[in-house]
Amino acid sequence: MSQLTISQRGQQMPASPIRKLVPYAEAAKKKGVTVYHLNIGQPDIETPKAVLDAVRHAEFKVLEYSHSAGNESYRKKLVEYYSKVGINVNHTQILVTTGGSEAILFGFMACLDPGDEVIIPEPFYANYNGFAVEAGVKVVPIVSHIENGFALPPISAFEQAITPRTKGIVICNPNNPTGYLYSREEMETLKSIIQKHNLYLFSDEAYREFCYQGEHFSAMQLTGVEDNVVLMDTISKRYSACGARIGAFVTRNQQLLDATMKFAQARLSPPGLAQIAGEAAVDLPDDYFDETKAMYLERRNALVSRLNAIPGVFCPNPGGAFYAMAQLPIDDSDKFCQWLLESFEYNKQTVMLAPATGFYGTPGSGRQEVRLAYVLNTEAIHKAMDCLEKALEVYPGRIK
Amino acid sequence: MSQLTISQRGQQMPASPIRKLVPYAEAAKKKGVTVYHLNIGQPDIETPKAVLDAVRHAEFKVLEYSHSAGNESYRKKLVEYYSKVGINVNHTQILVTTGGSEAILFGFMACLDPGDEVIIPEPFYANYNGFAVEAGVKVVPIVSHIENGFALPPISAFEQAITPRTKGIVICNPNNPTGYLYSREEMETLKSIIQKHNLYLFSDEAYREFCYQGEHFSAMQLTGVEDNVVLMDTISKRYSACGARIGAFVTRNQQLLDATMKFAQARLSPPGLAQIAGEAAVDLPDDYFDETKAMYLERRNALVSRLNAIPGVFCPNPGGAFYAMAQLPIDDSDKFCQWLLESFEYNKQTVMLAPATGFYGTPGSGRQEVRLAYVLNTEAIHKAMDCLEKALEVYPGRIK
Repeated sequence: MSQLTISQRGQQMPASPIRKLVPYAEAAKKKGVTVYHLNIGQPDIETPKAVLDAVRHAEFKVLEYSHSAGNESYRKKLVEYYSKVGINVNHTQILVTTGGSEAILFGFMACLDPGDEVIIPEPFYANYNGFAVEAGVKVVPIVSHIENGFALPPISAFEQAITPRTKGIVICNPNNPTGYLYSREEMETLKSIIQKHNLYLFSDEAYREFCYQGEHFSAMQLTGVEDNVVLMDTISKRYSACGARIGAFVTRNQQLLDATMKFAQARLSPPGLAQIAGEAAVDLPDDYFDETKAMYLERRNALVSRLNAIPGVFCPNPGGAFYAMAQLPIDDSDKFCQWLLESFEYNKQTVMLAPATGFYGTPGSGRQEVRLAYVLNTEAIHKAMDCLEKALEVYPGRIK
Repeated sequence: MSQLTISQRGQQMPASPIRKLVPYAEAAKKKGVTVYHLNIGQPDIETPKAVLDAVRHAEFKVLEYSHSAGNESYRKKLVEYYSKVGINVNHTQILVTTGGSEAILFGFMACLDPGDEVIIPEPFYANYNGFAVEAGVKVVPIVSHIENGFALPPISAFEQAITPRTKGIVICNPNNPTGYLYSREEMETLKSIIQKHNLYLFSDEAYREFCYQGEHFSAMQLTGVEDNVVLMDTISKRYSACGARIGAFVTRNQQLLDATMKFAQARLSPPGLAQIAGEAAVDLPDDYFDETKAMYLERRNALVSRLNAIPGVFCPNPGGAFYAMAQLPIDDSDKFCQWLLESFEYNKQTVMLAPATGFYGTPGSGRQEVRLAYVLNTEAIHKAMDCLEKALEVYPGRIK
């Protein structure tokens, strides 16, 4: 007789490394302590009114299933959007997904079988682990280093990691959690690797618009590897619309589009109301991003300069996204982040950070690093840094 | 060197059996032929205005991620809803999902490993196949018969299908595609099987409100098997809000809730705008379903009586949902449904049906059956039946 059990997959599925500290934050708040949330990528920036108004004023009688690939009108709008950022695709090469999350899952499902491997420079977005477990895929991390700002690991590191089961490489550009913006040269390096070894390149470009030095060079702009490249995209961060759950799976590989469409059909359609929002977002004035970007840049500058002014702290200047990784003089980032919430306060305030351990595939890595999301205004960032500075003076697990 | 290939899973993934006829329908329309769509479960009934208005008038500045389990306020509302239909759960036993689709996928992912088996009475909702392929799960069909209206197969059929890899049974009640409403006795039979063999019972109750004879008895109302039962639910059909993509995964099994929550966290949150709609829907007046149900009942009666009046046609009277399965005097339902669109018209009109082959797991089954969704008004149903009647008179592949 079989037992009523949780699947091995369900057991292996990682719990969110960021959300595990939530009970400590809640307890701190109950004690009257203000918690500055630099732990998650939920921007405080308002969703553009025009985007929400499009939903408010949409005229329809029946909220019907959309096309499984997303409304054609939205996909055609997305062609305009991609054209503006230098990516030439047609609307049949776009599948609208339920957030970037589903684009990642679809990519893993359609390209990789259980036991197949993807190489991901670490630290990396923790939920890649979750989707890999769902698809039975093995994540093979290769190390990027804080010393050079988490630049792309050398070709030799990829070559050493490649096995007969390797089917692809995943990058996030600009990167969550490091904020690193891959240069055109690094993208060309990736091209040479995927060409040589016939690999997929899964490129998560959720933060494309938020680049502070240098232009964004998309994986979709690489030539000669059109069948290899899969773009995994989302409107979540771009328009501060995380709750919409609208993303896109984009590739020029027709065979892969055909296969992925079957996964899209199984779940019928992406969210309908939010597709209206996404479509309206493409029509935002071109200067929309200027303002948002300027805001994030100011926050980044405040955060990074404050961090590097703290004795023993090192934070490379991130070129994009809205994250920074900092090395701290601490014994263990999990302990430290919990301690910040549980045992520390400064003027009835503290700061919530994400321990970097959750972003590494290699056990034991990231114990002296934390990720900071600069999703709060500059004043709040300064107050949070005041807390961190004081905390590091008194933290019992301080090293060096 | 590895090859750039589609995964085996991607190859095995079934294409939608319903959507494959779409190009023929489009071609017919281009020729000026009116196509009555009885092929898909997209109701023509208006989404309640109060539900859409809730979204239109929602006040917020940032469309944030919701809780991964769904907004607590919505889950608490759902507790009220479930209480009204005789299901006692608390809000921590509900995970809001992206449509019923995601609830099914979560159930398979968290309970079953690749190679594990689920038993499903056939004909069944075709997309169970898709989610099974995604999760690497083997679907083991057992036959239900049109002669007795697709009642639950006997215990012996289940017993014969059970192997050491069997982990669960999937039912849809009332059923898509058959419209069959399982009786309380049949539900108790299922209980005895899952108890004896320690199996999960995945109960898809998307059409709960649409029962035309007899009360709906939910799997969640079975006692003594609280840990075994997983309810997979959706607002799609209930409130004619298919495009919202809001469903629910409901169980009293705490261990399973904990595991499933990790899958929910990986994809961050269910759609935010549509959760507002779902929450408002619970507050619709209690007589909302009376009207909708009366409309479906009228349509069912029209459809079934017309079908059974056609020589050689047999259609059992479905007790629920808005589907009927009919046996036709034809050689092959795939050919026939294509022929209806490609080569037939009556007064510049034709009808689009779903070949039943797509709903059977056993190859070759369903070749003389079609599924009809009574999602059009009675007048349209009569016109569609006029077409079908004429078509069966002249169809070259008619048998008997």
